[in-house]
Amino acid sequence: MRQKAVFYHAGCPVCVDAERQLAASLDPARFDVEIVHLGDQKSRVAEAEADGVKSVPALVLGGLPLHINFGADIADLR
Amino acid sequence: MRQKAVFYHAGCPVCVDAERQLAASLDPARFDVEIVHLGDQKSRVAEAEADGVKSVPALVLGGLPLHINFGADIADLR
Repeated sequence: MRQKAVFYHAGCPVCVDAERQLAASLDPARFDVEIVHLGDQKSRVAEAEADGVKSVPALVLGGLPLHINFGADIADLR
Repeated sequence: MRQKAVFYHAGCPVCVDAERQLAASLDPARFDVEIVHLGDQKSRVAEAEADGVKSVPALVLGGLPLHINFGADIADLR
């Protein structure tokens, strides 16, 4: 069974690079990657924060938030 | 042909988590991941810096440095 991974971003250039490089590079046999644009889906900011996401872009993988470089603070997306 | 990806770390707990979660999750059909412990291989710090790595853990993927969370500043590993 594939594990769920969520890539949170806000459309920033840093986010787009990270999405292209990283979110697209996970093993498709093991991961089902959902891409969430928090600028467009503000209702999901709370979910990201509950997963420990402090900034975007971030990838939540196996319950662990991995912050990748730095695009924007999550507080600025609420 | 598989693309080379390099995961730089320094053995810190943040690094180990990122390695377990991320470096091990890349698609093995597309990436050949090399794990480099900069604490043990100080001669490779310059190479990491040339790739744009500012802190560890970091993954250099397609020439782009992706800093994952924050374990240690590269300047402290020279």
